[in-house]
Amino acid sequence: MAEVLVLSKHAGEYARLLQGQVRSLFATQSPDEALAEARTSAVILGEPSLVRVVLPHLPGLRWVQSTWAGVEPLLAEDLRRDYVLTNVRGVFGPQMAEYVFGYLLAHERQILARWQSQQAGQWDNTPPGALRGKTIGLLGVGSIGAHIARTARAFGLLVRGYTRQSEDCRAVHRYYHGEELHAFANGLDYLVAVLPNTGQTRQLVDAKLLSQLPPHAVFINAGRGNTVDEHALADALERGALALAVLDVFAEEPLPAGHFFWHTPHLIITSHTAALSWPDQIAALFLGNYRRYKRGLPLHHPVSFTRGY
Amino acid sequence: MAEVLVLSKHAGEYARLLQGQVRSLFATQSPDEALAEARTSAVILGEPSLVRVVLPHLPGLRWVQSTWAGVEPLLAEDLRRDYVLTNVRGVFGPQMAEYVFGYLLAHERQILARWQSQQAGQWDNTPPGALRGKTIGLLGVGSIGAHIARTARAFGLLVRGYTRQSEDCRAVHRYYHGEELHAFANGLDYLVAVLPNTGQTRQLVDAKLLSQLPPHAVFINAGRGNTVDEHALADALERGALALAVLDVFAEEPLPAGHFFWHTPHLIITSHTAALSWPDQIAALFLGNYRRYKRGLPLHHPVSFTRGY
Repeated sequence: MAEVLVLSKHAGEYARLLQGQVRSLFATQSPDEALAEARTSAVILGEPSLVRVVLPHLPGLRWVQSTWAGVEPLLAEDLRRDYVLTNVRGVFGPQMAEYVFGYLLAHERQILARWQSQQAGQWDNTPPGALRGKTIGLLGVGSIGAHIARTARAFGLLVRGYTRQSEDCRAVHRYYHGEELHAFANGLDYLVAVLPNTGQTRQLVDAKLLSQLPPHAVFINAGRGNTVDEHALADALERGALALAVLDVFAEEPLPAGHFFWHTPHLIITSHTAALSWPDQIAALFLGNYRRYKRGLPLHHPVSFTRGY
Repeated sequence: MAEVLVLSKHAGEYARLLQGQVRSLFATQSPDEALAEARTSAVILGEPSLVRVVLPHLPGLRWVQSTWAGVEPLLAEDLRRDYVLTNVRGVFGPQMAEYVFGYLLAHERQILARWQSQQAGQWDNTPPGALRGKTIGLLGVGSIGAHIARTARAFGLLVRGYTRQSEDCRAVHRYYHGEELHAFANGLDYLVAVLPNTGQTRQLVDAKLLSQLPPHAVFINAGRGNTVDEHALADALERGALALAVLDVFAEEPLPAGHFFWHTPHLIITSHTAALSWPDQIAALFLGNYRRYKRGLPLHHPVSFTRGY
């Protein structure tokens, strides 16, 4: 009989954060427990992969707040769509910017190579590279891409943005859309994908797109694994057609033990850690939306089932 | 009979960059050659350690433009001071900010440890740390410190600044001076020294100052080696009183083969690469000053022989 069902591996922490702030609450990390206790819940706060399991069995459901930005598990065509789905926006931008610039700077500064020199007792004063004056291209400029764009400007980078149609972020020097994908990528020093997983984004980073990049370019994928043709990327790295790829996401996660990426050169695997859902931030976002829900106001960060984000 | 003497290991590049822009020019990397050819020169553009050698033998000298920010070799009390000495400011800030945030992000993101996991075929999703919300303290807020402060703000850091008396940079949230050194350092997440080498800065970072920092703190020295009590720092790192030190500069450089820092834990050695003098940037700065020199205007970035910077 709980109004709000929390279904998350951080159930205990959410219970502590939300206790007393919502009418009634049941928090668990087990879909089975959730179904036994919360068949009448109207609101779910949860991880999409867990929410998916209980979705068909909640007759009173009105609203799902995802704890993630990506909500693919809830978008399958055979799943119900008779509720409001909201996701997380605005809180991942700073983490994503720290991720992207952490790895770009580690690359330019040769942090790994210099550390290896140190282990060998060598005074390694190889001149470092620099971000300043380089050009970064953002595949996707939502709230995350916009934050990366603003951080890029602080480092003196030129910023290109590729979007479906939006041109909302003033930190982007030049926008590209639709057919302009290859013009967008041409000659970029850094290509950063922060796209959701939709029909349009699948395999967008393919051999042809990668061939637009110069050999010194760095590619970072912090969006969704399906954006990338993994074979084409490994091939480009093996041929030296690309200096480095930093991948946080993969078509299959965790990356399977036998996957060729474990042996691809010039590839860094960051195991889906680029931006984590911290319960305190997500709880605050949820409570803001919960207050709107109770007053019958439109909720923030609604997801379009057809658009997919 | 050259008006301008260039004395630098990048002599060839400077000659190319300055040719036709100054009345007459002699460029060399050898002090001996310089003395044979340019006894009447009025202007030197050069590296302080080389300029020092020829300094007593230039009767017509009126101005020395250092290619470095630090000019210690020219500050010894027994050297002449009957000329205008200018140094480099404004061009090292962006490089220094990339250095500082490259290493802070590599630390928070556990870039080295995650890369080692990858080598072992492990999907390592240890949660990363973050810069956002942390507090950074800058020992020295000249043009370099100010640039680091502005970059820190872009990452959502709180910024403290310790200076002799200046409070020019608005990106600093709170300034400290003089006796407030330990209050400045108390509880900092990151302490970054970008001080010149003067009587006041020598051994400023000692055991007492380090004891103000929490065990998770990171110390970065990108100024001058003499700022640090190297024994006290090694001791703090060995005791775990400090999480990490990143040192670009040392009392003796290159760091001698037998130095204990080569075996100090939690220490990264970056071999004086934090900010390099790129000839194109230095040449542009020199030419701006040269035009002022020819018109009898006060030069930019004068160094006070008594203050030491």
